[in-house]
Amino acid sequence: MGKGRLEAFSDGVIAIIITIMVLELKVPHETSLESLLPLLPVFLSYVLSFVYVGIYWNNHHHMLHACGQVSGAVLWANLHLLFWLSLMPFATGWMGENHFALMPSALYGVVLLMAAIAYWILQQTIIASAGPGSLLQSAIGSDWKGKLSPVLYVIGIVSSFWVPWMAQAVYVSVALLWLVPDRRIENALRRDRV
Amino acid sequence: MGKGRLEAFSDGVIAIIITIMVLELKVPHETSLESLLPLLPVFLSYVLSFVYVGIYWNNHHHMLHACGQVSGAVLWANLHLLFWLSLMPFATGWMGENHFALMPSALYGVVLLMAAIAYWILQQTIIASAGPGSLLQSAIGSDWKGKLSPVLYVIGIVSSFWVPWMAQAVYVSVALLWLVPDRRIENALRRDRV
Amino acid sequence: MGKGRLEAFSDGVIAIIITIMVLELKVPHETSLESLLPLLPVFLSYVLSFVYVGIYWNNHHHMLHACGQVSGAVLWANLHLLFWLSLMPFATGWMGENHFALMPSALYGVVLLMAAIAYWILQQTIIASAGPGSLLQSAIGSDWKGKLSPVLYVIGIVSSFWVPWMAQAVYVSVALLWLVPDRRIENALRRDRV
Amino acid sequence: MGKGRLEAFSDGVIAIIITIMVLELKVPHETSLESLLPLLPVFLSYVLSFVYVGIYWNNHHHMLHACGQVSGAVLWANLHLLFWLSLMPFATGWMGENHFALMPSALYGVVLLMAAIAYWILQQTIIASAGPGSLLQSAIGSDWKGKLSPVLYVIGIVSSFWVPWMAQAVYVSVALLWLVPDRRIENALRRDRV
Repeated sequence: MGKGRLEAFSDGVIAIIITIMVLELKVPHETSLESLLPLLPVFLSYVLSFVYVGIYWNNHHHMLHACGQVSGAVLWANLHLLFWLSLMPFATGWMGENHFALMPSALYGVVLLMAAIAYWILQQTIIASAGPGSLLQSAIGSDWKGKLSPVLYVIGIVSSFWVPWMAQAVYVSVALLWLVPDRRIENALRRDRV
Repeated sequence: MGKGRLEAFSDGVIAIIITIMVLELKVPHETSLESLLPLLPVFLSYVLSFVYVGIYWNNHHHMLHACGQVSGAVLWANLHLLFWLSLMPFATGWMGENHFALMPSALYGVVLLMAAIAYWILQQTIIASAGPGSLLQSAIGSDWKGKLSPVLYVIGIVSSFWVPWMAQAVYVSVALLWLVPDRRIENALRRDRV
Repeated sequence: MGKGRLEAFSDGVIAIIITIMVLELKVPHETSLESLLPLLPVFLSYVLSFVYVGIYWNNHHHMLHACGQVSGAVLWANLHLLFWLSLMPFATGWMGENHFALMPSALYGVVLLMAAIAYWILQQTIIASAGPGSLLQSAIGSDWKGKLSPVLYVIGIVSSFWVPWMAQAVYVSVALLWLVPDRRIENALRRDRV
Repeated sequence: MGKGRLEAFSDGVIAIIITIMVLELKVPHETSLESLLPLLPVFLSYVLSFVYVGIYWNNHHHMLHACGQVSGAVLWANLHLLFWLSLMPFATGWMGENHFALMPSALYGVVLLMAAIAYWILQQTIIASAGPGSLLQSAIGSDWKGKLSPVLYVIGIVSSFWVPWMAQAVYVSVALLWLVPDRRIENALRRDRV
């Protein structure tokens, strides 16, 4: 079974998720510059979520590139990932409209955590279906980002109950971790280990 | 006529259906964990519908894989299926917001039933246009799931007037029936028959 | 320049148009069967528009199939068609929510008329860019449906000011005209002419 | 890495942006022709934004056509462009609902300006990743439109604080600049220079 349609369907769902998040930016009824101010936290949440969904699309793109065949298990692991990503607009809207309050910030972290776990499951399913010595297995290497991110999300969720702004700082840091070009960091780490 | 564009269009429509259902999860104005509680039935309905639309996409993917040529009749049978699937967000929202009340639960079953019938019509149209001994004909085999599901939906619809929670139980069971990997069950059934 | 991306973009836009129309079906707050009754005209408008957008997708699919190369003029003629189709959700919602009142019914006809004209312009642009004796030119033949439809839309628009239900009857008739398989009618007409 | 999926994802996002803008056209509750009048500025804003997004899709289509390979930097430069385009529905809605008031008109210009800068960054990233003497480099030529547009947007933004209608005039002019077929103007300019 070809992977073309799996890519097309995932692209469609991710494109819709990334775009409907902007609908949370409700058009204000006034025309002053000040009327945009209350929208600032919603806008910042939108930027953060846009970057996160962009990272997922980017990584999904690479992962499927290294995927040979698509089994039924891969199809469902992929839908499972799309399910958690589809909750991003809700989590983003709740966090943005409530100015990064405690519980919405924690929920945002939970959605990020579940998406990361779903991504990991999809990765393992593809590797398992490809058999030992697969292309993806060697491509991801030690996968230290994939292993570190869920730990950081949990720290973010827990810390949101003590230091509210800590959660945001953690979520932004994880996004930057993925945004910074891979190779330079990995090379640096490799050198550290030698 | 190629089937590529039929797949692309169906993917687009199904991707939008599966994603706009999440818009029924309205962002609460409060920030307490309790404010999420009234959303629980909406969330559960969303999960159920996400799984159903996922099953349809999955099966649609397989069915078109075994389809050679696309006639005008196939195009319209496909649009007919997409029409019933497009009513899923409405049926899901009505059922979720009313905590699985009688009439919304029955309507949800009606939409599932109509989608199942539309799927069956599409399947027959593809088989008819391919002629006897088609690939799809042999691929679906006895099609016991396709024949059993509409019967179960009718049982769900009818039972919702007597035992409200029965309808949900039936809808969840049918979804599980399709989720469980095919071959093991079919092999088991085959062995039973021998 | 390839036509693949033109098809993909058009598929995306048409898929979204056909799906967001269902958002006009607002979930009622009550759970009785009667609470669905006021939605009936909205539902009927949705069915009609779904069929119309389906016809456009179908014909667009065929037309581009017979199109060799895509020029800048074709790209813009295509966007022009998509523009008028994008007004379908608005026209459908206004007509459905006002129980097929005079002015909304007339506007619905105007949108159908403009889409038909845009489709004709796109067709001529493709034929012009392909040069004389093109595949599309011979494929559309006398194009009696394409020529008759705008005339009928005008009749529908005008009649809506005198006999309100006439407009709907005309719009439904034109949709049926396109839905009925082509060849049988065309053969019948050919025989009539002989 | 192939560019097919980058095109498909961009098509999806642009198709959704161009279509959800129409949701700002809220269906009026009355049925008179006059009830459509307050929607006129919203409609005009929609037309302008539809043309702008169409121009971006068109140019994006051409640019990627001349792009050989897709690097990680290209993926992110592309997402950056899509981010600014995704703010078009918000800027369009604010400007249309407030009858082209000062601040919304300025913001609309800012979004256009940022999208133009993002487009320029994407172009440079593709040229840089292709190396000297790339196809895209020679295809865009002097790129006088790409250089003139941001300057005009800034004039539009600034002028909106003195002469409100000037901003609209500038935005419409830039759109026309891109709509008018390229070659004739470029040939004229070339002749002027000789």
